Amino acid sequence: MSDERIWTAAVLVIGDEILSGRTQDKNVAQIATWLDVQGIRLREVRIVPDIEDEIVDAVNALRARYDYVFTTGGIGPTHDDITVDAIAKALGVDVIIHPDARAILERYYTARGGELTEARLRMARTPAGAELIPNRMSGAPGIRIGSLFVMAGVPHITAGMLDALTGTLEGGAPLVAHTIGAWAPESEIADILSAAERDHDGVAIGSYPFFREGRTGANFVIRATDGDRVTACVAALTMGIEGAGYAVTDGGI
Amino acid sequence: MSDERIWTAAVLVIGDEILSGRTQDKNVAQIATWLDVQGIRLREVRIVPDIEDEIVDAVNALRARYDYVFTTGGIGPTHDDITVDAIAKALGVDVIIHPDARAILERYYTARGGELTEARLRMARTPAGAELIPNRMSGAPGIRIGSLFVMAGVPHITAGMLDALTGTLEGGAPLVAHTIGAWAPESEIADILSAAERDHDGVAIGSYPFFREGRTGANFVIRATDGDRVTACVAALTMGIEGAGYAVTDGGI
Repeated sequence: MSDERIWTAAVLVIGDEILSGRTQDKNVAQIATWLDVQGIRLREVRIVPDIEDEIVDAVNALRARYDYVFTTGGIGPTHDDITVDAIAKALGVDVIIHPDARAILERYYTARGGELTEARLRMARTPAGAELIPNRMSGAPGIRIGSLFVMAGVPHITAGMLDALTGTLEGGAPLVAHTIGAWAPESEIADILSAAERDHDGVAIGSYPFFREGRTGANFVIRATDGDRVTACVAALTMGIEGAGYAVTDGGI
Repeated sequence: MSDERIWTAAVLVIGDEILSGRTQDKNVAQIATWLDVQGIRLREVRIVPDIEDEIVDAVNALRARYDYVFTTGGIGPTHDDITVDAIAKALGVDVIIHPDARAILERYYTARGGELTEARLRMARTPAGAELIPNRMSGAPGIRIGSLFVMAGVPHITAGMLDALTGTLEGGAPLVAHTIGAWAPESEIADILSAAERDHDGVAIGSYPFFREGRTGANFVIRATDGDRVTACVAALTMGIEGAGYAVTDGGI
């Protein structure tokens, strides 16, 4: 298992609206879940403001470290949409009007009785050498250039772009995860958890406490690429927690 | 206005559960909103896995750049709670059992008929030289050391810690923000937005499109530290958008 290649990714969220607390980000969770199914591990997220240099620095730091980098936000038609320029600058390439993107936008707006204005044409701008990612929701496509994927900020548009990418990225074995839960303070079973992780190579156990209905409990997520190891660890952990006097709920609480 | 000191902060979310997509982060939005009221700008967020070196690198990168750094997650009693060790390593100090934290935890568990086990005592560990941040929810305190604030992963516990910190951090003038909305495709009014931003020094306009009930609209957030400038820009923008034939909803849609 140790010589199995692990594919990694980072997400770069570009958005003053997230940093101001105005908008709750939804893209990280949906991209994380999607990556998991592709056999790719999300290893880092950064959220930066709509400032070109900040985006350039983050793009370059992340693409040097991870197999894939996904950006979200800043690809619309307005003055605060500077993602394409920043990415072109990070890659040292020009910004062009992508002919296919132009054609897509022209069709989209003409079909709706509008026209491709100067502002709308901004959404056809890509770094030179990019491919388009279809966007069935609103015309304006996403962009792929090398290991970089430039997605929308609006979550349901990004969801459509992820659908279009499903199965097209090379990945490894997806992680198998199994959750169990108990109405136990995690401090009571901390030793059982660390022993179970130590006894099962390649398995990681996360412990997530909660407080509900005035009571303390925790869910435990057991993860590995090898499903048999997950099963063995879940069995050992369940026995240990039950031995400490707590009922275990399979699937989590 | 340009010589006014701007206070900045970063948030470092420590948590495999966020990167796996299992848990939707709530702490970034609540810390962002809280910082705004303190007159501090959230300028960057990073989310890293429960891996010591990753945490150390991120802590050092962020504390070199921003006035304040808030971490969330990884301060419980279990094997995957490694935040304190990572921060001590980043700062080059030892980890100690903080006597006040020990006393707090002892009182907390004794009052509930329990005792301060070895696992629970882990929650009294701090980097040497730290102060405690009260946690009225669950005993285990947060930690302040210099410009670093070590908060819980569970959002309502972090909320309590933020309450305890309210008014204690030096900040500047809070940003004044005003939102207006219109059922207009943002591509139709992109020029109006960029002209309004250009005409009003120190004002930033964010444009946030949405699709609801089959229609396209956008909200526009006008921000500055000077409330009069915000008011003037809102008036100019409203006139511009109405001039383009769209009704403007004050407060946003």
